[in-house]
Amino acid sequence: MPQETYDIVIVGAGPVGLLLSLCLSRWGYKVKHIDNRPVPTKTGRADGIQPRSMEILRNLGLKRSLMAYEPAKVYNVAFWDPLPDGKGIGRTGNWPSCPDFIDTRYPFTTLLHQGKIERVFLEEIEKAGTVVERPSTIVDFKNNGKDAEFPVEVELKDIDTNVCTTVRTKYLFGGEGARSLIRERLNIGIRHKDPIAHVWGVMDGVVRTNFPDIKTKCTIHSDHGSIMVIPREDDMVRLYVQLASSTDKDWNPRMTATVDQVKEAAVKVFKPFDITWDRIEWYSVYPIGQGISEKYTLDHRVFIGGDACHTHSPKAGQGMNTAFHDALNLAWKIHLVEGGMAKRDILTTYESERKMIAENLLDFDAKYAKLFSTRIPSVGEVDSALGRAKSDETNEFVKAFKSACEFTSGYGVAYKPNIFTWSPAHPAKSPLFHPKGVKVVPGRALPTCTVTRVLDFNRVALEQEIPTNGSFRFFVLAGDVNKTKTALADFNANLQKSRSFYSTYSRPADQAASYFERHNPHSRFFSLCLIFANQKEEVEISALPSTFQAYSHHIYADDRSDRFVPDALAPFHAKVGLDAERGGVVVVRPDGHVACVVELVEGSGTVDALNEFFGSFSEKPLGGEAGQSRL
Amino acid sequence: MPQETYDIVIVGAGPVGLLLSLCLSRWGYKVKHIDNRPVPTKTGRADGIQPRSMEILRNLGLKRSLMAYEPAKVYNVAFWDPLPDGKGIGRTGNWPSCPDFIDTRYPFTTLLHQGKIERVFLEEIEKAGTVVERPSTIVDFKNNGKDAEFPVEVELKDIDTNVCTTVRTKYLFGGEGARSLIRERLNIGIRHKDPIAHVWGVMDGVVRTNFPDIKTKCTIHSDHGSIMVIPREDDMVRLYVQLASSTDKDWNPRMTATVDQVKEAAVKVFKPFDITWDRIEWYSVYPIGQGISEKYTLDHRVFIGGDACHTHSPKAGQGMNTAFHDALNLAWKIHLVEGGMAKRDILTTYESERKMIAENLLDFDAKYAKLFSTRIPSVGEVDSALGRAKSDETNEFVKAFKSACEFTSGYGVAYKPNIFTWSPAHPAKSPLFHPKGVKVVPGRALPTCTVTRVLDFNRVALEQEIPTNGSFRFFVLAGDVNKTKTALADFNANLQKSRSFYSTYSRPADQAASYFERHNPHSRFFSLCLIFANQKEEVEISALPSTFQAYSHHIYADDRSDRFVPDALAPFHAKVGLDAERGGVVVVRPDGHVACVVELVEGSGTVDALNEFFGSFSEKPLGGEAGQSRL
Repeated sequence: MPQETYDIVIVGAGPVGLLLSLCLSRWGYKVKHIDNRPVPTKTGRADGIQPRSMEILRNLGLKRSLMAYEPAKVYNVAFWDPLPDGKGIGRTGNWPSCPDFIDTRYPFTTLLHQGKIERVFLEEIEKAGTVVERPSTIVDFKNNGKDAEFPVEVELKDIDTNVCTTVRTKYLFGGEGARSLIRERLNIGIRHKDPIAHVWGVMDGVVRTNFPDIKTKCTIHSDHGSIMVIPREDDMVRLYVQLASSTDKDWNPRMTATVDQVKEAAVKVFKPFDITWDRIEWYSVYPIGQGISEKYTLDHRVFIGGDACHTHSPKAGQGMNTAFHDALNLAWKIHLVEGGMAKRDILTTYESERKMIAENLLDFDAKYAKLFSTRIPSVGEVDSALGRAKSDETNEFVKAFKSACEFTSGYGVAYKPNIFTWSPAHPAKSPLFHPKGVKVVPGRALPTCTVTRVLDFNRVALEQEIPTNGSFRFFVLAGDVNKTKTALADFNANLQKSRSFYSTYSRPADQAASYFERHNPHSRFFSLCLIFANQKEEVEISALPSTFQAYSHHIYADDRSDRFVPDALAPFHAKVGLDAERGGVVVVRPDGHVACVVELVEGSGTVDALNEFFGSFSEKPLGGEAGQSRL
Repeated sequence: MPQETYDIVIVGAGPVGLLLSLCLSRWGYKVKHIDNRPVPTKTGRADGIQPRSMEILRNLGLKRSLMAYEPAKVYNVAFWDPLPDGKGIGRTGNWPSCPDFIDTRYPFTTLLHQGKIERVFLEEIEKAGTVVERPSTIVDFKNNGKDAEFPVEVELKDIDTNVCTTVRTKYLFGGEGARSLIRERLNIGIRHKDPIAHVWGVMDGVVRTNFPDIKTKCTIHSDHGSIMVIPREDDMVRLYVQLASSTDKDWNPRMTATVDQVKEAAVKVFKPFDITWDRIEWYSVYPIGQGISEKYTLDHRVFIGGDACHTHSPKAGQGMNTAFHDALNLAWKIHLVEGGMAKRDILTTYESERKMIAENLLDFDAKYAKLFSTRIPSVGEVDSALGRAKSDETNEFVKAFKSACEFTSGYGVAYKPNIFTWSPAHPAKSPLFHPKGVKVVPGRALPTCTVTRVLDFNRVALEQEIPTNGSFRFFVLAGDVNKTKTALADFNANLQKSRSFYSTYSRPADQAASYFERHNPHSRFFSLCLIFANQKEEVEISALPSTFQAYSHHIYADDRSDRFVPDALAPFHAKVGLDAERGGVVVVRPDGHVACVVELVEGSGTVDALNEFFGSFSEKPLGGEAGQSRL
């Protein structure tokens, strides 16, 4: 019997494995997905969804189902410190968890237990045709190349029956958590940036208390120890109690504590307030340190991600969010390679991009903690940081606070210039890259903006209009409909040339899209939006060049308002930093991060520049003679 | 065997019966609910949810489930008229369906077929413990008073088995649609305001067309007839084709037409555009006129509502929305009476309030149609109406357009002054009613406003914070926390007097609310919100009087911004028209319509005024000596 073959075998159905599985299953890949637990997470574990992660989840179409669980939303962090003379604790500050200077539609952390988040993913993964097999574990694997197409051999075991199966796959992904067998077999080490580890007690439950901030995220320091309060759905609250530190004299990373001991510790910390428990839903004690994997892959066939690559203190609330980014980053790159659009070596950017972000995160955490441990910021510094007073950008605390907010909200993810991310410094041949005045930063998420869809005058969130479909997103800011007519016609004509990036990777004739396809009418790798700096009534779709007509659901009027550019008549043009008459093209990676910005000009220049961008990683040659001859 | 007894028997599981059933089931009443169809609506029928109805559905907790069906949203109506020389049709105008001057969070009509809407209701009704029995029909009923508590005898028949059952009930409700057996048995006539009836063909389907406004609501007049286009979920579109009118020479209200005939008619109307059908989901031909029932009840035990009381042209898009209002209006009144809080005669206001609204609606429809049939408004008039130019409030078209928008969005529902709706003209004893400057209008819906919840700093829609729980809602606008301290303490003390409205209808000791009850901690009839015109950090819940502490989830800072009062620091105070230092109390009926506004003063005045308001329909005497003596 020939071995079964897969595009990818995914081990682990936590956040990282689920997001990767969902993307690749939806995009048409054959996925084998296993998990060693007999059932999904029932309670507890990770639970904080950052603002930027909520954008990602919405883009995957999961937000409504998550919100149906009525999660708690954290808008605020309260600080409680010891009162003098042993009188217990008192509030010393209140900070927004995502201040107004962050451009997001979700200025809060969404708290929901991991089991519910997993359930939402699992339902959608099943709709896409993949079933997570459980309880099942990986026994062994080797990239033995016995089959060039499916080079990796994986041995799996059904834990109920002990029956082993060997399958062949193009890729193997380890999302098994901190104790990753795949990472261990690859002999990849973990580096601990901060040598200090802690033992945490964590407890989800329903409490009765007169502590006034029980519905708010709190950091409590008391003479009896420290606690972090995290409100939860269904009248619950999570308490993180720091039970021991590796700096303690009697440090024992395997220390345990009973639920009653943890409760007792909490009761002391909360004084002068009372706290009692109606019920405990989940309770755990575990040691954890900040750690990062030396490599994310050795051969670009076997990858690891999520907790297998990086572990964080629960204080940072980063675990699940970083996992989502890891999975999304890898998913579209596998799609480009396996779809035949990009050269295989682009897969090196998974490690270079994601490891850099993990390093930044840990560096930042250490720096931030150090800054706070030395002194408490002044009122003036806090006001400046929050924009209540004139911001002093040279003050170290203000800078640290602002980047802290960016990190904790998820908007600090900024990929460095590389093959996919062309900053102004990129040595491009075309002079049209990154026109003067552009404000969006390649490597960062596209800013939000509400616009009007011309087809039905619906008000929509532009940055959400193209779903996570593995495609590059073109935001063609078309300026004034009366001034860019020729530029758009030329853009259209040059897209249609046989060696343009767009034509080269168009769907084969026998795989034509349905009449009702909105996002990928011509290609599995490109989706296009056209945004005019006009009133919606001024745009007539039937007068536009043919390529745009196929995207009739993606033609917009930039005629709403935006709090970041209150005076702009065309706020998206203003936020991107492009002229409201002449426009320009913003290329966004399939993960929502800006790739590059190109001027929109008459003639072939704009498409030539895009051919240069895509040509740098394209499997086939783009542009040049053959292309020119067709006009 | 004794007869089974119910609080209410509801006949019909269309929109009116479902909303009534949901409310009363949730509020603890014993409901028998039947429908003569073997299964819920599968396709077609009513489908337009107005902006105001969406607020009502959200308040019932149904919005998220409805939106999960991805309904079409109509923001715009396009007008198409004949081009000269038989060249087919051309667009002559574009109007927002809910212009910016309407204060709503949902400035669009939501299009979703009735079956999906019913399904969302049915799921929630089952959660509340009621199951719709089907197919089952009403055979007979009489209010024979043989049992004083359950005066109405109802005979029901299971249509599958032909088994009849007789039950006794406090109320019987007929929501059986236009051909109501209950209405007929009561011998209540239908009056036709507009003598003209039409035969309509209606067709839901998936089309392919180059008609550019297929995703927009359109009114098309052509040389070959008239069509209304309504976009639908799932790439569908509904076409209403007017097939005949009672003014035609060969008028036959029983005329029929095949689906091919209707398609053929549509193809002609759409010229010069092409239209073909991929599939038809639903098709029907039916005659309809505008009609209104003479009475909504005879004995205040047997009631009718929804289509049983009023029929409309589909053009107005009013049917389901009016039904929702009918049901909500009746539900809370039954709750007040059967809960022992209000005198039985308040039930007369169901007919007086709801019939007046139906009459207004039909009057308006006729007037509006007439205005348009005489001439087309000028560009200046349209711009003035939409607020694009300075509004000319004396122009008849501008006035008509504005009230048209109010009606079609559902915000035109304005109950006249009565026992529940105390306008400035109400002969109240207390001089504190309706303080100078108040902008909210008793009888109309409370305006929307976003505020900050103090407990967790969440940004919330204030008008949605109290769910549809059958309770009166007190919005205590508390002005400046430093200036109203005494007034709030006095308000609290007077609420706690034994003969205050609040104490009189508090929960009996053996029915105390759960520790976690947010909306009805003290009473099944009252819910309270406290809104300060301060920044959120300035409000300390633990410093507030005891009554308010029980509503810790309902204490807010009026510190966000609102587009209707861009310069106000406390926008909700400004929209209500109350002083941002001294505040005031807005009493809102359980259906979200304003009841009265009272000054917030030191001493007993505010609660005295509220005792007067509630005393006018209270089952028990309120206020007076016994109350005073306890202070």
